[in-house]
Amino acid sequence: MLHIPFEEAQAELYRLLRTRDCPEAHARQVSREIARNSLEGVYSHGINRFARLLHNIDDGIVRLGVEALPVATFGAIERMDGQLGLGIVNAALAMARAIELAGTHGIGLVALRNTNHWMRAATYGYQACDAGMAAICFTNTMPNMPAWGAVDARLGNNPLVLAIPHGDHPVVLDMAASQFSYGALEVAMLQGKQMPIDAGFDEEGRLTKDPETVLRTRRILPTGYWKGAGLSLLLDLFAGCLSLGNTTLGVGRLAGDEHGLSQVFIAIDYHKIVPADQADTLTGELLAHLAQSRLDGGTDAIRWPGSRLAATREKNLRDGIPVDERVWSAICAMG
Amino acid sequence: MLHIPFEEAQAELYRLLRTRDCPEAHARQVSREIARNSLEGVYSHGINRFARLLHNIDDGIVRLGVEALPVATFGAIERMDGQLGLGIVNAALAMARAIELAGTHGIGLVALRNTNHWMRAATYGYQACDAGMAAICFTNTMPNMPAWGAVDARLGNNPLVLAIPHGDHPVVLDMAASQFSYGALEVAMLQGKQMPIDAGFDEEGRLTKDPETVLRTRRILPTGYWKGAGLSLLLDLFAGCLSLGNTTLGVGRLAGDEHGLSQVFIAIDYHKIVPADQADTLTGELLAHLAQSRLDGGTDAIRWPGSRLAATREKNLRDGIPVDERVWSAICAMG
Repeated sequence: MLHIPFEEAQAELYRLLRTRDCPEAHARQVSREIARNSLEGVYSHGINRFARLLHNIDDGIVRLGVEALPVATFGAIERMDGQLGLGIVNAALAMARAIELAGTHGIGLVALRNTNHWMRAATYGYQACDAGMAAICFTNTMPNMPAWGAVDARLGNNPLVLAIPHGDHPVVLDMAASQFSYGALEVAMLQGKQMPIDAGFDEEGRLTKDPETVLRTRRILPTGYWKGAGLSLLLDLFAGCLSLGNTTLGVGRLAGDEHGLSQVFIAIDYHKIVPADQADTLTGELLAHLAQSRLDGGTDAIRWPGSRLAATREKNLRDGIPVDERVWSAICAMG
Repeated sequence: MLHIPFEEAQAELYRLLRTRDCPEAHARQVSREIARNSLEGVYSHGINRFARLLHNIDDGIVRLGVEALPVATFGAIERMDGQLGLGIVNAALAMARAIELAGTHGIGLVALRNTNHWMRAATYGYQACDAGMAAICFTNTMPNMPAWGAVDARLGNNPLVLAIPHGDHPVVLDMAASQFSYGALEVAMLQGKQMPIDAGFDEEGRLTKDPETVLRTRRILPTGYWKGAGLSLLLDLFAGCLSLGNTTLGVGRLAGDEHGLSQVFIAIDYHKIVPADQADTLTGELLAHLAQSRLDGGTDAIRWPGSRLAATREKNLRDGIPVDERVWSAICAMG
């Protein structure tokens, strides 16, 4: 395992994007966010995924030099078209617009179509919290999960984000509608590990913890069994219909790797609506109360979404970002 | 098992509410919704739960003759206070107000505090769909689920609803953040059944499918393991903080049975934003595609949230609503 300083990782990703004529500002933003994902411990959607992004750019699935544009506005709601540009750039623009609408109306919603993989879903939750906003956002994906009781993948695993500001430690949930993301399965496979609980089905329809098997059958387990399948469907309908873009069905019809996604960004002007002292007290007391839970012996501390981020970030800033040697050399060879 | 005609069930629930001086309009609404929940197959939050509601009224935890009032407005957002009135009445008022705000702004959000159990969460999703609106709504609950890695219940199971209009067959997801609701565990216990998958932990911290054991330990399994615990926390923070009401921690501090809940209702003016023909096509094609999935042999048809409702409703209208004899005689003896 290599340990690469954050600045060095970002600089190399930036250099590679620039070899593809990616505009400077977009290359700076995308390299920073992808390096940051690995820095903050989200290895599945950081540097490990960068080669695939470059391939998508080279294949013309991700277009450079374009970004999301508004196509229709209805009060606090706006529909945008991502023109198949960089997913990180488009999603950040859409959330910025939702934040702007929320500043006017208290709440704002942007439905974005024709966009690409936004990498780490939580990014846009943190973006909202940085602006004093709470957020709900989600994306659809290519078909990668069967309906409950089915064998063939016709649902996406459609990550969902819920984010609440809390000083320097916002609480940001980032969960896919599958028990594990394909990214997490890929990381485990690279590390030669089994998943801690069942992750999907093998060829005979038996539950299995083996990431390689599930990556082969594409039968990942919905989170909460039938519940995750239902959640996936509803998030897809919201994203596809509100944006008048692709549902997962439409994404699956496009030739080539995953592209042409639909996403929803909801921002709520939290700091205007909830007095800061009351918000701090309500959230702080609840988190402290959870932290004081009686432990079951299998863990040394209660965790919640975002609670480990600062420690991981600090460690990786100090020691460098852990990156698999093969992954890094494959990336560096692409420019 | 008794089979009670819908009108007879509703009339008896109405009579009992009126023996408690419940205003006529509230008694009509609450008896209709609770009978409808059982009629449509949601037995856990229908007639089976009515005796507990009457006890809550008799204990003064649920107050009669009051309803939710607005306390603050911020553009498309309104905060309401439920005055500890009937949960069904308050939630329907809050969703009606969210729908009204969405009619003006495209999207509307109501945060409701000091309310009581809304019974079947999907009710308010269907209410929105009947008005041509998509909806996201959720409630917190009393502490009834441990944090991940903990033994003692400090989270709620906080049901979440996502609803999309689709002609006479809206798609309405109603999922608690636990793998099973306590209501569903109670129904299974009454029927002497085991749950189909693990439902929680026994006294020794082992996973178990036995509803009676989990009802005793109060260690229900979060849906998707740690994911459901995270989802629960975020929904609680949204509901408690936006309403400036109780989080699950505050609910747990109140003496007596569960009361003083916080809820969020988001309505989106779907039919204004999405042309009806395009919405019908996108949703219809996706559902048809799912229905044509290759089955894994364990089921005879692919289902999705709301897909079984019409058939169950028709059957129970024809044959009467199945109600456990002990449950029904206990209710009838309360007036």
